[in-house]
Amino acid sequence: MAHPTPDAILQLGTGFWASKTLLSAVELGLFTELAAAGPLDAEELREKLGLHERSARDFFDALVALQMLEREDGRYRNTPETDLFLDRNKPSYQGGLLEMLNARLFGFWNNLTEGLRTGDPQNEAKAGGNLFEAVYSDPGLLRGFARAMTASSMGPAMVMAQAFPWDRYKTVIDVGCAEGCLPVQVAQAHAHMGGGGFDLEPIRPLFDDYVAAAGLQDRLTFHAGDFFADDLPHADVLVMGRILHDWDLDEKRQLLEKAYTALPDGGALIVYEAIIDDDRRENVFGLLMSLNMLIETPGGFDYTGADCQGWMRDAGFGETYVQHLLGPTSMVVGIK
Amino acid sequence: MAHPTPDAILQLGTGFWASKTLLSAVELGLFTELAAAGPLDAEELREKLGLHERSARDFFDALVALQMLEREDGRYRNTPETDLFLDRNKPSYQGGLLEMLNARLFGFWNNLTEGLRTGDPQNEAKAGGNLFEAVYSDPGLLRGFARAMTASSMGPAMVMAQAFPWDRYKTVIDVGCAEGCLPVQVAQAHAHMGGGGFDLEPIRPLFDDYVAAAGLQDRLTFHAGDFFADDLPHADVLVMGRILHDWDLDEKRQLLEKAYTALPDGGALIVYEAIIDDDRRENVFGLLMSLNMLIETPGGFDYTGADCQGWMRDAGFGETYVQHLLGPTSMVVGIK
Repeated sequence: MAHPTPDAILQLGTGFWASKTLLSAVELGLFTELAAAGPLDAEELREKLGLHERSARDFFDALVALQMLEREDGRYRNTPETDLFLDRNKPSYQGGLLEMLNARLFGFWNNLTEGLRTGDPQNEAKAGGNLFEAVYSDPGLLRGFARAMTASSMGPAMVMAQAFPWDRYKTVIDVGCAEGCLPVQVAQAHAHMGGGGFDLEPIRPLFDDYVAAAGLQDRLTFHAGDFFADDLPHADVLVMGRILHDWDLDEKRQLLEKAYTALPDGGALIVYEAIIDDDRRENVFGLLMSLNMLIETPGGFDYTGADCQGWMRDAGFGETYVQHLLGPTSMVVGIK
Repeated sequence: MAHPTPDAILQLGTGFWASKTLLSAVELGLFTELAAAGPLDAEELREKLGLHERSARDFFDALVALQMLEREDGRYRNTPETDLFLDRNKPSYQGGLLEMLNARLFGFWNNLTEGLRTGDPQNEAKAGGNLFEAVYSDPGLLRGFARAMTASSMGPAMVMAQAFPWDRYKTVIDVGCAEGCLPVQVAQAHAHMGGGGFDLEPIRPLFDDYVAAAGLQDRLTFHAGDFFADDLPHADVLVMGRILHDWDLDEKRQLLEKAYTALPDGGALIVYEAIIDDDRRENVFGLLMSLNMLIETPGGFDYTGADCQGWMRDAGFGETYVQHLLGPTSMVVGIK
């Protein structure tokens, strides 16, 4: 064994510096400015962003060293990735998620230790609030949340549109659909598919706008409801993306049973999120997302593919399988 | 070019989750418990740490996935690195720095954007305090700070004890010495070397204890003083480790001029810290440390080897050179 060094420990312990530097850049609209105004030198970029002279150049060069910016002859420009995903004016913008991480979660995570000791959430709920009630009752917050969900669903949804045997089915309903990222991807890739999304009523205008922008309003319909209070709509395929991890085990089982009830024989339920590897030692993001559910929810947690397949079988599903989609995200499929 | 994906962006943006997970583990004394009590299963470890059942296993398994713990047959134990560097009962403990990152800096960094906009520090100074006054007037805080400095100096000090031509000199004084990590390493490696450390008076008992524990009290002496108000003590070699970056450019130049004055002809000044590469695009840690100086100080910033050599030559030094020590740390040497 090589001589032990503390490098990895110190790099991880100071890792929040790099993370917050990117989040502040998104907050300041740095990548949007560079996308609009082309390569800028440090002084031009500093003025556009309204930054003090003291640390602007260190901030920009740290982003270069973190490979979030390029610098040539003293002029800064986006990388291909930050140009595509962090320019607010592009439909591929994924910054909504980073804006939420910056505005809410960075501060809430400062109380992780208290969360671990008490088991209680460390977000708005500490002041008597409820995340979902707060988000769904404020149109501005809701739009940001829905966009963040679209951003983080886009990659897996694109892969899922190819990786699932859609030719065997005709309709798909995304349960907890937000803007409808997943059904839009499926409908765009498969002309025979129809269906839509199911979510709370305040989501309706966001879904309708997003689906209309894709020209799919004739094939995809919004269904309003509460997935605990109401029955789920019928479809050949039901999808739950980043839904189950918000809830405790009893609630997870209720949702799986409701899906089973709503599906026809031979119908499929697709659950997708950062499914933890069965040995719980590889999927760092999935395990940390589960701690994020501690911060954000009263009882939510992430889980392994084996966990989810077991719950599906308990709910009545026959065939079940796990398939990797993209990065930390996999889908667990159950066939009725 | 490969198809752009948002993976690196999302990994960096959520990077504070992993970082805070390690910091909470240090805060909870997890590595110290495991070092003392041997491998423990999840329930035993949870009870030792006083954690709620809800997320304890996710927390432990996230640390496994982050390679900060090992797990075999359901029992957790430290890695060689976390055992050596994060067990409070070992002299090699480096957790003091992580404790400070956890207790102070994670929260302060939440205000990075405000710091970038205003150029003002975002630590205790916002409430009218002063970091150094606060630390030096509280014996408990001061001991923690001094230990954190020893922890982060140990690696570079061990390399410097070998990499510098100490055979040409007889005495070394570390300016801003804290516990005296550097002079102890040099004296242990070179029996002909004497000298000591220079710092504010409250550091004296910490230095004396640390040096006595190494059995070097006959060769290393503490000199009390304020490096702005007082002259520096004379020695063949003066060292400033993680000192210059705390101060603005005028103050940096004052300190370099004082060192030049205090040295004999042929004497050497060694400046060491996370020296930024001259092209300002490689040393991520050095660039982020400079943003940490924004958070922590009124005018401090990190700098390149070329910057420092220029200031040294302006102060009168003849020969200057930069030599890499370890990880992000290099030394800049000036010969009078």
